[in-house]
Amino acid sequence: MATICRPAVSVPEHVITMEQTLELARELHADHPQLDLALRLIENTGVKERHIVQPIEDTLRHPGFEARNAVYEAEAKRRVPEVIRRALADAEIRAQDVDVIIYVSCTGFMMPSMTAWLINRMGFRSDTRQIPIAQLGCAAGGAAVNRAHDFCTAYPKANALIVCCEFCSLCYQPADLGVGNLLSNGLFGDGIAAAVVRGTGGTGISLERNASYLVPDTEDWISYQVRATGFHFQLDKRVPGTMEPLAPALKEIAGQHGWDAAQLDFYIIHAGGPRILDDLSKYLGVAPEAFRFSRATLTEYGNIASAVVLDALRRLFDEGGAHEAATGMLAGFGPGITAEMSLGRWSR
Amino acid sequence: MATICRPAVSVPEHVITMEQTLELARELHADHPQLDLALRLIENTGVKERHIVQPIEDTLRHPGFEARNAVYEAEAKRRVPEVIRRALADAEIRAQDVDVIIYVSCTGFMMPSMTAWLINRMGFRSDTRQIPIAQLGCAAGGAAVNRAHDFCTAYPKANALIVCCEFCSLCYQPADLGVGNLLSNGLFGDGIAAAVVRGTGGTGISLERNASYLVPDTEDWISYQVRATGFHFQLDKRVPGTMEPLAPALKEIAGQHGWDAAQLDFYIIHAGGPRILDDLSKYLGVAPEAFRFSRATLTEYGNIASAVVLDALRRLFDEGGAHEAATGMLAGFGPGITAEMSLGRWSR
Repeated sequence: MATICRPAVSVPEHVITMEQTLELARELHADHPQLDLALRLIENTGVKERHIVQPIEDTLRHPGFEARNAVYEAEAKRRVPEVIRRALADAEIRAQDVDVIIYVSCTGFMMPSMTAWLINRMGFRSDTRQIPIAQLGCAAGGAAVNRAHDFCTAYPKANALIVCCEFCSLCYQPADLGVGNLLSNGLFGDGIAAAVVRGTGGTGISLERNASYLVPDTEDWISYQVRATGFHFQLDKRVPGTMEPLAPALKEIAGQHGWDAAQLDFYIIHAGGPRILDDLSKYLGVAPEAFRFSRATLTEYGNIASAVVLDALRRLFDEGGAHEAATGMLAGFGPGITAEMSLGRWSR
Repeated sequence: MATICRPAVSVPEHVITMEQTLELARELHADHPQLDLALRLIENTGVKERHIVQPIEDTLRHPGFEARNAVYEAEAKRRVPEVIRRALADAEIRAQDVDVIIYVSCTGFMMPSMTAWLINRMGFRSDTRQIPIAQLGCAAGGAAVNRAHDFCTAYPKANALIVCCEFCSLCYQPADLGVGNLLSNGLFGDGIAAAVVRGTGGTGISLERNASYLVPDTEDWISYQVRATGFHFQLDKRVPGTMEPLAPALKEIAGQHGWDAAQLDFYIIHAGGPRILDDLSKYLGVAPEAFRFSRATLTEYGNIASAVVLDALRRLFDEGGAHEAATGMLAGFGPGITAEMSLGRWSR
């Protein structure tokens, strides 16, 4: 039975608070006709601070796609190995025990992928499988857990390493002035998370079932425009209402497993924004407190894209975990609109 | 047992012959100090013609990364569905029988990925898993086969759809003048391939074992530079010699399976270039004729990146397949330097 072990998480040292974010928005967009709306939306996120890979002055400058992507590569190479080392140690395995690396990131692009660099630099075996995923956005954290689960189902003695590396601040586009952009500029943060899924042994969530769900005809709700200036994030105003069509899919996977989605012992949910969490607790019939891990991630780090679910899971571990065989759900949401869902039991 | 069924392949209607390629190189690079070397290298590829998504006049123009990527998206949406329909028909399954779509492509970038669009437009179920991979380059065809194999090992009744969509002509960079670039401009072609891996049933290669191998410290041999003008392909002059370090990995996977890599009944090999195939037949001790499927792909279509292995496999089917239980190997090579290898038996 595949078990996802304690995730390791790291956020960068440069901090921007909600107050600084609001102040910047007022300065930079003083003449914006919807400034008040944008400020209100940013305040409503509840994001107290975010951590970013460069000082804010550098973040606000756009040095071009090439230079930006070079920063991505340099910062990923500088910051990812330490997080992986902790994840391996927490799972009590060594680099040479890893059979597949699933590296997900939508905020920079490299070919070869970071997986090749990691294998060469960190002592992974030359026959480690590489699964780099760049196009699932925030849903990629859940997707990585699910593909790791599938891999360990196929090879029960295998170990999968998941890495989520998101530097959302490197997708800041100063010329994008839609309200959705202004909101995004105050919502997303940077973070790196890694976790091991062990095919055998390990303490954490023993993964029992996973599923994916695409909300029909919502491709343009969350998307990138690919331009000479890099990736331009586009957020439709319908996105906060996503939980209404998605909640039934979460109930369905629980039902297929003989569980009631309203009655699980723990929930590790992508914190896309406060409305996502509020609506989901309403539609599932779950107390808001059940989403405390995701809320803490959102408040302290902002939306760190694919890394949210691993950070929220880390907070469950920090709380001491759950009781043996406690039932839970992990779900990532992202462009598509896609949900990547997983059910499991706490296993000590 | 997972079986990869007959691939469907499509190449675009715009053709450029070797003679036209050489003529263009002479015209565009008349003053290039290494023109003669570049012409010789292009001639040596043996690529008689390539098929590209736009007329050559449009291909040679660079309208900017945004416009290029928009062409990628439009052409993929226009051309991929028909190829998928044929692959599904050849595997005797319907769209709603597909459990995972593995879409690999390194010549355009979309988020959401093409997988979301395909699910919405082609009758795939909303719970179809999406595995889009953009960063494995030419190795991604082999990787897709192997991840489909793994998925069907985990879920023996599942069906995986593989799609390789490569429009290499959309990565032509007129300002890149290295000899490796000039060679690439005469080597790569466009193509789309799709195939179903059935967990149960089907005619084709019954997949028995797969493995990946990264040649240590070769990350910079094949790579993209990511710039405002898009992806810039970089080909190191050491790449043609790749088979010397890679052949032992192919021998090893065969040995682990109790097979002799020199004695298999069929070989489906990535046709990176003629030297790759020549060297591999030498290092494995296999008659050049054994690689006839890959050579035909190279001659008629050029290097169509991740789609090569599926097109070579299609040619084995066109030849009538192999005898029952014939043993074979499928291998994709690409940036990393990564090999994605698979062993299986022909199954009717």
